[in-house]
Formats: sequence, C-alpha cells, structure tokens
Amino acid sequence: MNLIANEEFMRKAIEDCRAGFPGNEGGPFGACIVKDNQIIATAHNTVMKDHDPTAHAEINAIRKASQVLGTYDLSGCEIYSTTEPCPMCFTAIHWARIARIYSGTKIEAVRALGFNELPVSNAAFKALAELSVDLVENVLEEECQQLLEDWAAHTNAATY
Amino acid sequence: MNLIANEEFMRKAIEDCRAGFPGNEGGPFGACIVKDNQIIATAHNTVMKDHDPTAHAEINAIRKASQVLGTYDLSGCEIYSTTEPCPMCFTAIHWARIARIYSGTKIEAVRALGFNELPVSNAAFKALAELSVDLVENVLEEECQQLLEDWAAHTNAATY
Repeated sequence: MNLIANEEFMRKAIEDCRAGFPGNEGGPFGACIVKDNQIIATAHNTVMKDHDPTAHAEINAIRKASQVLGTYDLSGCEIYSTTEPCPMCFTAIHWARIARIYSGTKIEAVRALGFNELPVSNAAFKALAELSVDLVENVLEEECQQLLEDWAAHTNAATY
Repeated sequence: MNLIANEEFMRKAIEDCRAGFPGNEGGPFGACIVKDNQIIATAHNTVMKDHDPTAHAEINAIRKASQVLGTYDLSGCEIYSTTEPCPMCFTAIHWARIARIYSGTKIEAVRALGFNELPVSNAAFKALAELSVDLVENVLEEECQQLLEDWAAHTNAATY
C-alpha cells in the first residue's frame, strides 16, 4: 500500500480554494479527487455564494466527480482535502466509496478561525464508525495553514 | 420546550419518498423541513437518479430550503426524517443550524435492507460531537417501517 501523497494534487486543491477568495464564496477549503493519478475534479467551499450549508469543498468535489464518472460510486478514487474533512464530508466520502483521504490542517486550526466545526477529528470519527478508510494526514500542512491565514486576512472573510 | 411531533409533517416526508419509488431514484428515505409550522421543503433520496452519493433526503431538503429562504442559515427550522439521519446528514443539519430532528425508523432497520450505513446512531453521534440538537425519535415508526418494506418489495430496488 502506497501512502505517499502526491503533493501536486494537494496544491491543486489549494489553488482551487484560492480562486474562491475574491468573491467570498465560502470558507478556506479546497479538495481534489484523483483516480489512476489523474485529476477527476477540484472544488472549493461555496457555502456563502450558493446559500448552501452542504457546499463544502469535499461535497462539491464529490458531486462534480460523480457527474464526470456518471456514477455515485467513486471506488478507486482518492481525495485531497486542505483541512481534514468534517463528519458530513467524511461520511460523504464513505458513501462515495473513496478509500483514502489525504489532508492538510486539522479541524482545530479551523475552529481557531471561528468556524462552527464539530470537535470530531477524522481519527475519532473513523474509530466510532468502524471505518477502514486510509487517513494520510499533515500533507503540505504548512501551505494549508498559510491558506487559512491568507483567507483570514482577506477582506470580508465570513465564518459560519 | 414542545417535543410533540406534528405527525402530518412526517407523513409529508413519507409521501415525498414514495414519489421516488417508480423511477428507482434512490433509497427509501424522505425528509420535510418546517419553520413556524409551515413546510419549507420536502425531498427524497435521489442518489441513483442523480448519480450523486450526497443526494440523501435530508441533504436534498436542506439544499431546497436554503434556496427558498435565501440563506445557508436555517435557524428556527426543524427537520423530519423517515429514518434517523446518517452522520453526513446529521452534520449537515448542524451546519444549517437546525435545532431539532424528528425521526422514524433507526439506522439498524436500513442496514437490514442491505444499505452500507455506518453503525452510528444519532444518540452516539450527538454524544461524540457534543451537540445540543433535540432528538425526537420513533415518530410514526410503524409507518416509516412500512415505507421501508414497501420499497424493498418494489421492482429493482437497489441498495448501495
């Protein structure tokens, strides 16, 4: 089992996230879904832009990837998330049958910004839900932390 | 605090769910979102129809209600779910700031049908996530169980 992250995929998630800054589209979160070393979809959080509390980066990426592949079943895909997914997104990843999550910063870093995140780490949720998904954490963590800080310094950054 | 369910709202969730049977749109799950005793949105699971693993009844209902109200913030709303929400939907309810969940059947009843549900009850998730949302369970449980059975007897009922 190869658990070495391809950092370029995380950088694509970061890059997509930054594209949402000017319009204050949502929180500072990006995601990238990959299959067979090819990017299937990238997305960022659009909760504010879309007036949709479910429009997290991972949910948006899963919905895009499902349209690209024409199925709800994303077996064989992996997901990169700039921050570890919240339980909504983690469970969506389960339903999509994605078997590996690469993540950057931790939920605590986002709670510190003022987001109403649940105090549930991926490790804690994985244990509760008896999941076998692979967790690869701290991928490009410094760049992901910089992403959070750049967003927080941005005009009109709104938490929810 | 009034914790008496308005059973008619659960019946609307059941009715919406049944509308998805003929097209095999998704699993046998319906939801209804209410504010000030008025229905804001009803929805059912459309995972198969939409090729979208996130298209559970509660997610669909939250997305509809957010469009109706023009905000991600559904404070003051309550949700009726024919089966207790999975952790994806439960967390979406948290993000939407919905403070009360009325549910019918339990996740175990759906696992018995063959769905890949996580073994996480609403009570267990509420405890892990330190949530204060009100849970009103076993609302019209017999009618919700009948809904599951009618769906399972339907031609081409597909689990996932």
